[in-house]
Amino acid sequence: MKNDLGLQALALHKRTRGKLEIITKIKIKNKKDLSLIYTPGVAAVSTYVSQHKNKLNDYTMRGNLVGVISDGSAVLGLGNIGPEGALPVMEGKCALFKHFANINAIPIVLSTQDPQKIIDTILAIAPSLGGINLEDIKAPGCFIIEKTLREKLNIPVIHDDQWGASVVVLAALINALKVVNKKLNEVTIVISGAGAAGSAIVKILKQKGAKNILVCDREGIIYKGRINNSSHKEELAEISNPNIKTGLLKNAMKDSDVFIGVSSPSIVNEDMVASMKKKAIVMALANPIPEIMPDLAKKSGAYIVATGRSDFPNQVNNALVFPGIFRGALDKHIKKITIEMLVHVAERLSSMVKKPSPEKIIPSIFDKGVMQTVAEAIK
Amino acid sequence: MKNDLGLQALALHKRTRGKLEIITKIKIKNKKDLSLIYTPGVAAVSTYVSQHKNKLNDYTMRGNLVGVISDGSAVLGLGNIGPEGALPVMEGKCALFKHFANINAIPIVLSTQDPQKIIDTILAIAPSLGGINLEDIKAPGCFIIEKTLREKLNIPVIHDDQWGASVVVLAALINALKVVNKKLNEVTIVISGAGAAGSAIVKILKQKGAKNILVCDREGIIYKGRINNSSHKEELAEISNPNIKTGLLKNAMKDSDVFIGVSSPSIVNEDMVASMKKKAIVMALANPIPEIMPDLAKKSGAYIVATGRSDFPNQVNNALVFPGIFRGALDKHIKKITIEMLVHVAERLSSMVKKPSPEKIIPSIFDKGVMQTVAEAIK
Repeated sequence: MKNDLGLQALALHKRTRGKLEIITKIKIKNKKDLSLIYTPGVAAVSTYVSQHKNKLNDYTMRGNLVGVISDGSAVLGLGNIGPEGALPVMEGKCALFKHFANINAIPIVLSTQDPQKIIDTILAIAPSLGGINLEDIKAPGCFIIEKTLREKLNIPVIHDDQWGASVVVLAALINALKVVNKKLNEVTIVISGAGAAGSAIVKILKQKGAKNILVCDREGIIYKGRINNSSHKEELAEISNPNIKTGLLKNAMKDSDVFIGVSSPSIVNEDMVASMKKKAIVMALANPIPEIMPDLAKKSGAYIVATGRSDFPNQVNNALVFPGIFRGALDKHIKKITIEMLVHVAERLSSMVKKPSPEKIIPSIFDKGVMQTVAEAIK
Repeated sequence: MKNDLGLQALALHKRTRGKLEIITKIKIKNKKDLSLIYTPGVAAVSTYVSQHKNKLNDYTMRGNLVGVISDGSAVLGLGNIGPEGALPVMEGKCALFKHFANINAIPIVLSTQDPQKIIDTILAIAPSLGGINLEDIKAPGCFIIEKTLREKLNIPVIHDDQWGASVVVLAALINALKVVNKKLNEVTIVISGAGAAGSAIVKILKQKGAKNILVCDREGIIYKGRINNSSHKEELAEISNPNIKTGLLKNAMKDSDVFIGVSSPSIVNEDMVASMKKKAIVMALANPIPEIMPDLAKKSGAYIVATGRSDFPNQVNNALVFPGIFRGALDKHIKKITIEMLVHVAERLSSMVKKPSPEKIIPSIFDKGVMQTVAEAIK
């Protein structure tokens, strides 16, 4: 990130004192207005919805309200900076919800990073919300939090670092493979990063038919029975690395077709890209500094490069999907978002690019119809 | 409440689908805007506030955001109707916060009514909030919840059913006593209702100098050592009823100067009012149906009558104070609201009525300067 962008962002935030405002939809001009929106008139509404709980969304803001919830344990590429540091990001996410999908969203940052306490807290406040977007919560806690909330709640719950990222990656990959004329079930895919995003990318690529995926963490390729594998990594090993390959990231990348980085800045060098197969696809998504810069990757032989940044072609940006996913789920009263729905979203999103090319494998967030396409795909 | 008002309220709420909307203060027109409010630019803001936590309110919405939180256990006069039933009331309260004090407020209703779980939940979400307005939480749980949150949090916490009500009652009583030319430390005051409001009214009247207060619950006058007194009621007995009087509400009211009802509809009859001292003050605040209707109270000899309703003179309405209390606390970074501050608010509020009369002992919510007067009094 350029420093002056950061300074501009600081100045803007200080001037506006945050990015959101809560306004009233009903004007209060006199006692009559007051008696309708508050006591005594509101008593009729309260009585009615307490007796017809399934009508609550029709009479309150709840049906169009998403909580954007974080414990601040994995904020952007900044790491565990706590709830205060997370709040500006969550507000930004809420602003995107409003801008792109006309969804009311409220940032909620937590003073605990204990998964069970996070679960208890969210279950306690859930009657206020029409949907829950978990955000920037570190692995492996994020998995049990999302899983438990989905089981116990009757509203859509998505950890966006997992599913937002993975849907856009799949959409981009579908088009990239068209450009290089390779098949998903034949290519070797290397994923650097076994956290929230990396894990979900494995799952969605498997769901779509990928056969040969290698996942690397800081210690190298994850394989079944590796010493010190957490249960989460052992699960990843179960669904990836069918030939039980071992070694470092550079060993994984040799002769691979696709590299997907959701890990750390600058950990991929030119030799590693050069060792990939012809017409290699490199998605270096670490933010703000990618695993390898696009010009370097191209120079080293990558045929298609994507990043998470808006200042290069092919921005893999969660904002392409989360507004539309919740718009679709809220409008159609969908309680559980399934992986099948998410694959369908990725397919529809990829098909928005009529003629994929190395410089255009994914729609831009400002392309017309992105939100609507995603919302329609959720069903 | 007239039925047609309830029907109108239902129709209005269904048409607008709730009363609040969350909007963005910053327009998002292009990638540059996006890069300032979200990644990568927002990273500079997140880094800064995570390192300067006391600056968080300057860079986010938090400094002007109040959570209006309820467990739905004591909603209006409707009782324990749960979080769904509470939500329309909380949204209404948030609308009043915005309209009267330009405070952003968000309704949060809870799926638990266990005081410890409520405390844990609110502590967990507190980093998101600039202040907390507890609402419609039943006694005695509300006392320990408010007390614990005030001890553990560094933001203003007020249970409005206690303090909003008690401040307005004190303000009204100051003026009513002027009209009838009696002194607070000489009158006998009967309070019907030993819940959140009744308890706080005792405390604030004592703080202002009242000496002789009798509190009645369903079983009659509360006195020290009464069989089956909860610890909460035993505490009330400690600070009221100095002569250890026993009997029913009608016995308490005989020869009293002031009746304050925060209890149940129609439990006071004409004989009971007639048995009070001359120039009796009757505040029948049960909502929507008072302990005795104003015309009946007047006919029975009451000199001044107040209710909680907007369709009679002297409306004792929490909305007179809670917007200004939070406006003052947020603007002046006041972390704890003390009872001394609240007495000061009541004094200033009462002094807004230049010439108190039986029909005008309290400002109207639509009088100019109410919010500002209250906000200034908080210091």
